Amino acid sequence: MSTENTLVIVMKPDASVGQIANVTARVQQIGARVHLSEGEEQTIIGVIGNGSPINCEQIQSLAGVERTVPITRPFKLASREFHPQDTVVPVNGLQVGGRRLTVMAGPCAVESREQILETARIVKAAGGHALRGGAFKPRTSPYSFQGMGEKGLRLLAEARQVTGLPIITEVISPEHVPLVTTYADILQIGARNMQNYALLHAVGAAQRPVMLKRGMMSTIEELLMAAEYILSHGNERVILCERGIRTFEKYTRNTLDISAVPLLKQLSHLPVIVDPSHATGSWELVIPVARAAIAAGADGIIVEVHPNPAEALSDGAQSLKPERFTELMASLDAIATAVGRTL
Amino acid sequence: MSTENTLVIVMKPDASVGQIANVTARVQQIGARVHLSEGEEQTIIGVIGNGSPINCEQIQSLAGVERTVPITRPFKLASREFHPQDTVVPVNGLQVGGRRLTVMAGPCAVESREQILETARIVKAAGGHALRGGAFKPRTSPYSFQGMGEKGLRLLAEARQVTGLPIITEVISPEHVPLVTTYADILQIGARNMQNYALLHAVGAAQRPVMLKRGMMSTIEELLMAAEYILSHGNERVILCERGIRTFEKYTRNTLDISAVPLLKQLSHLPVIVDPSHATGSWELVIPVARAAIAAGADGIIVEVHPNPAEALSDGAQSLKPERFTELMASLDAIATAVGRTL
Amino acid sequence: MSTENTLVIVMKPDASVGQIANVTARVQQIGARVHLSEGEEQTIIGVIGNGSPINCEQIQSLAGVERTVPITRPFKLASREFHPQDTVVPVNGLQVGGRRLTVMAGPCAVESREQILETARIVKAAGGHALRGGAFKPRTSPYSFQGMGEKGLRLLAEARQVTGLPIITEVISPEHVPLVTTYADILQIGARNMQNYALLHAVGAAQRPVMLKRGMMSTIEELLMAAEYILSHGNERVILCERGIRTFEKYTRNTLDISAVPLLKQLSHLPVIVDPSHATGSWELVIPVARAAIAAGADGIIVEVHPNPAEALSDGAQSLKPERFTELMASLDAIATAVGRTL
Amino acid sequence: MSTENTLVIVMKPDASVGQIANVTARVQQIGARVHLSEGEEQTIIGVIGNGSPINCEQIQSLAGVERTVPITRPFKLASREFHPQDTVVPVNGLQVGGRRLTVMAGPCAVESREQILETARIVKAAGGHALRGGAFKPRTSPYSFQGMGEKGLRLLAEARQVTGLPIITEVISPEHVPLVTTYADILQIGARNMQNYALLHAVGAAQRPVMLKRGMMSTIEELLMAAEYILSHGNERVILCERGIRTFEKYTRNTLDISAVPLLKQLSHLPVIVDPSHATGSWELVIPVARAAIAAGADGIIVEVHPNPAEALSDGAQSLKPERFTELMASLDAIATAVGRTL
Repeated sequence: MSTENTLVIVMKPDASVGQIANVTARVQQIGARVHLSEGEEQTIIGVIGNGSPINCEQIQSLAGVERTVPITRPFKLASREFHPQDTVVPVNGLQVGGRRLTVMAGPCAVESREQILETARIVKAAGGHALRGGAFKPRTSPYSFQGMGEKGLRLLAEARQVTGLPIITEVISPEHVPLVTTYADILQIGARNMQNYALLHAVGAAQRPVMLKRGMMSTIEELLMAAEYILSHGNERVILCERGIRTFEKYTRNTLDISAVPLLKQLSHLPVIVDPSHATGSWELVIPVARAAIAAGADGIIVEVHPNPAEALSDGAQSLKPERFTELMASLDAIATAVGRTL
Repeated sequence: MSTENTLVIVMKPDASVGQIANVTARVQQIGARVHLSEGEEQTIIGVIGNGSPINCEQIQSLAGVERTVPITRPFKLASREFHPQDTVVPVNGLQVGGRRLTVMAGPCAVESREQILETARIVKAAGGHALRGGAFKPRTSPYSFQGMGEKGLRLLAEARQVTGLPIITEVISPEHVPLVTTYADILQIGARNMQNYALLHAVGAAQRPVMLKRGMMSTIEELLMAAEYILSHGNERVILCERGIRTFEKYTRNTLDISAVPLLKQLSHLPVIVDPSHATGSWELVIPVARAAIAAGADGIIVEVHPNPAEALSDGAQSLKPERFTELMASLDAIATAVGRTL
Repeated sequence: MSTENTLVIVMKPDASVGQIANVTARVQQIGARVHLSEGEEQTIIGVIGNGSPINCEQIQSLAGVERTVPITRPFKLASREFHPQDTVVPVNGLQVGGRRLTVMAGPCAVESREQILETARIVKAAGGHALRGGAFKPRTSPYSFQGMGEKGLRLLAEARQVTGLPIITEVISPEHVPLVTTYADILQIGARNMQNYALLHAVGAAQRPVMLKRGMMSTIEELLMAAEYILSHGNERVILCERGIRTFEKYTRNTLDISAVPLLKQLSHLPVIVDPSHATGSWELVIPVARAAIAAGADGIIVEVHPNPAEALSDGAQSLKPERFTELMASLDAIATAVGRTL
Repeated sequence: MSTENTLVIVMKPDASVGQIANVTARVQQIGARVHLSEGEEQTIIGVIGNGSPINCEQIQSLAGVERTVPITRPFKLASREFHPQDTVVPVNGLQVGGRRLTVMAGPCAVESREQILETARIVKAAGGHALRGGAFKPRTSPYSFQGMGEKGLRLLAEARQVTGLPIITEVISPEHVPLVTTYADILQIGARNMQNYALLHAVGAAQRPVMLKRGMMSTIEELLMAAEYILSHGNERVILCERGIRTFEKYTRNTLDISAVPLLKQLSHLPVIVDPSHATGSWELVIPVARAAIAAGADGIIVEVHPNPAEALSDGAQSLKPERFTELMASLDAIATAVGRTL
């Protein structure tokens, strides 16, 4: 893909004429055009690339350079400039990113046949569109429940057969991608793996839509660069997910970055889903935050629902009981209408 | 005010029997009750206070103590437990915190008679409820425009007379409180002054409603503690304002903490206003984020509107043009209905 | 003060020729020179100011502008470019910022005559150079000990008379500046007040050295801008203090930004002091972190010492006992020698 | 491994007697002991486990529970309580974690035979102890240089043969672990992969020392939990690395958490290495920050050195030139002596 790379080089106030000439020569060597702006106190050098990448790090280490300021956004395939129309990702009958919102719901982890089938029925009955459930769980502690593995995947497939709901489940290792692809309708990349590039390559080569969650301390630019990895490996069916970032606030598990929703829609053509359960860590906050997400322009939400949160093997505190999920769906319906969408 | 202060003292695994006895004795000296939980590896001491404050710092420095965990929330007057009903703050004909939402709008700074009168008419015409505008501006640079001072206050008062809109303006120093109180309907405490205790005392003693903005570096608990200062000095008309916190994300000026809205409503009885302009720093994000705020349960918003943002002396990039403000009002109306409120 | 203001304007990829011309005309109106760099995809406009300030916010709100990138650092009087030699602040016989390091020590708050006199003797005996102690305390809770006020100042003065140690104490309100100046050798601006501009004005006009603590969520640039306020009001005796910033890490009270020490020395000519007590919140971490500060090039440290931390009315957990302070002094001596300084 | 799990359950102020009884019963079901502390306003329940893990999430979702506070630290094998003596990791003749400090140095990425051999000779000549160099590079952009792969590993092995320096190199995917183990003396887990559990499992099973870098978004507790994964899979030769965390500060690439050094030494028995190159992103800050690390008690550092930073394919801006590395070694020697270590 040919693209311009534009940057600004800020020279130190005491940079010598020779240093400025040296930097200019270096930039011209790689075929870029140079525009000198000489002030009385400081010289700045505008660089317009010709398609070859410009290595800021190299330039920054040249004598006399104070800093470099990249101008061009580093993502291409993920950017709206590159692809002005909204991308709609087809998922087994569902359209993620269209006028109709997508609600994905289910337990944090698949725990048993009864649990997942019961939850699937609840989700279906309340009007949810897809079933979530983890079979491979990335857990902070090696002593915590790590998921049911392939057995969990089979139970998810059974729940899909019973309810017709497409399923979304997390894949945590490149070697599991073929296995998970066999069962799942959407491959989920979790927040902790947003920059696991080997995994991004693997799902980039897979024949399934991918939902990519923002890392809890990743910038919006890094999220779009991670999407770029998947897109550049040939998979165009990428769904972005905002799930809260890590801040100093302690009352909530994370801080949902609500502005990220309209910003991602502005910068990118990819659909944006919000996860209010992980963002807040508390079921009492899920409904108002889910409403806010839809009001801000999200294409849908993914929430944790458990038939009995007090028995959940993980994340019970942030799971909705069935009746609260039904309440959420009703409540979202009104907001959807208010912003010109449907549920 | 009598209140229990409950905390847990975690002893080090190698704490001696004598150290445990010493800590216990210290706590009992101040009249608190003690509950020992002795495990094989570690002892924890539950402390139930009797109303006297317990100084965690002192206890933490005693030999054998690993850490102390305060259990009781430190705010009282601001807490919903203390005051279960929603507080509605009457402001010159307006009711902040009731079923009807409050939209405060206006320029970042009062710049001229024409500018503030024109903006006031725009706000009024579009259905806004109060006029904002800074006369004393806290600015990062000593070389930036610092506001028109008392002349700006007089212009605000004139705009109120013309339109009937109550006015809200910032006070940045205790010595200015009497002056600003003469003109303003609501005294605003800015984010940078949230922990300026001398100023909190002064507005606590003033006879005006106060809108307290969350510091960009402040936790929700600290915001409620700052409200507690004002309340404890006798002023019960406090309005909280979420305006974004500082995070690592660079595309937006701050990160609006949307979960803070339902959380503050849960923890406190005070009204909650959201400022999408300062939170995002970009007018393009103001409308979707304002919608999200109302959907999450906020009692209103405060936004920047300028008749000509490209001429604004401060914060032009985040100011709405008049026609965009009108669009915002229409858009909020639908969301308000969806959440059972009115505009 | 005449200075160039240099910035780069990045136009949107779809900006029209008319929009580019309009932005250019706007910039030229204020007398700045313009350098256009037109790429195939995007135009960037280099702006070299002529001394008048350029309002980025105004430019950013013009049609077709994607963003503006300020190039010139906004601080002048505080910058090393403006003042290449190190500033040494003379304080009642002491030289802060010279080859000899400065150790300021004492309790968080003055609590009684005995406490402050005993601590002063300990500090003096161990080789400390100045006595710290708060008389006006900014406290998160209105129910916490707020300091002894003027009585505390008188006790500090008595401790100075007895030991010869200069005293540093915090001032929290503009109206207190004359009073505190009567007693103190150094006025301290606390982290919560770093952007209390009314207070910065007041100490800028005072005839005393000022130690300015970095706000817990302030950038290095904002710290230097706050110093600029004081300097621009005529007080050149400013000492900077790094005391830790707020991050997501919970095991420590704050995260000491150790890189800020060499960075501040690079960007500014002002002396830099480090506060390991507030940064860590734990006396066990004070000694290693104090060593690190000196090794990184700090001009000194300010630490909490209390004759009996378990009786301290505030911050006992982070206060050193007398014997630990003596140990610290010995330990710093070796590091000082290793970096070519003396204690 | 049998261990107690201790936690405190804070009941809501309005929790009913039945709810308290229900929570108590649930905890007793799993064999834990319960200590009730009933205040007038609030009940807290101390829970002392019997070795079975207690699922806080489940308890938190029970009716009447306000929150749960875990008391026991979740890491065991990594904790100093479990293993009081310092762990010294033997690496091909080197002892990481003993009295002698370890300096690992080399380029960010292996780029060519000449580059890596020349750097190895520079590192060896200046007294460095190990050679670093990436063959598999995790890069934010899919369009950046991704490393030389196995060819790079072979060049590293050749550099070891020539100089005798052990080599440390990053592994980014579980499937590469056997290959990288064939060549490397220390397997490095990069910051972005700190919670890549599949990878942690793989290196936990490998027969090589592992250096685990703290994620830029990770707490100290999470770093120790990641170490716990490796230790619990049978590999006891784990070295921790602090490399800076992400904060709001923009002048540096990351914020080095200097307090993490003494804190990790306090909480854990594992050696601690500091990476001042990635933490600061600027070669000008590397020397003072490296000094600070040693002064704070680190067991060594890992720095980037490149024969010609202006030609480096990655991270040139933070690489030291050969003469600066020599200067660093001399400068560290003095600090090492000051803290009772040797180089």
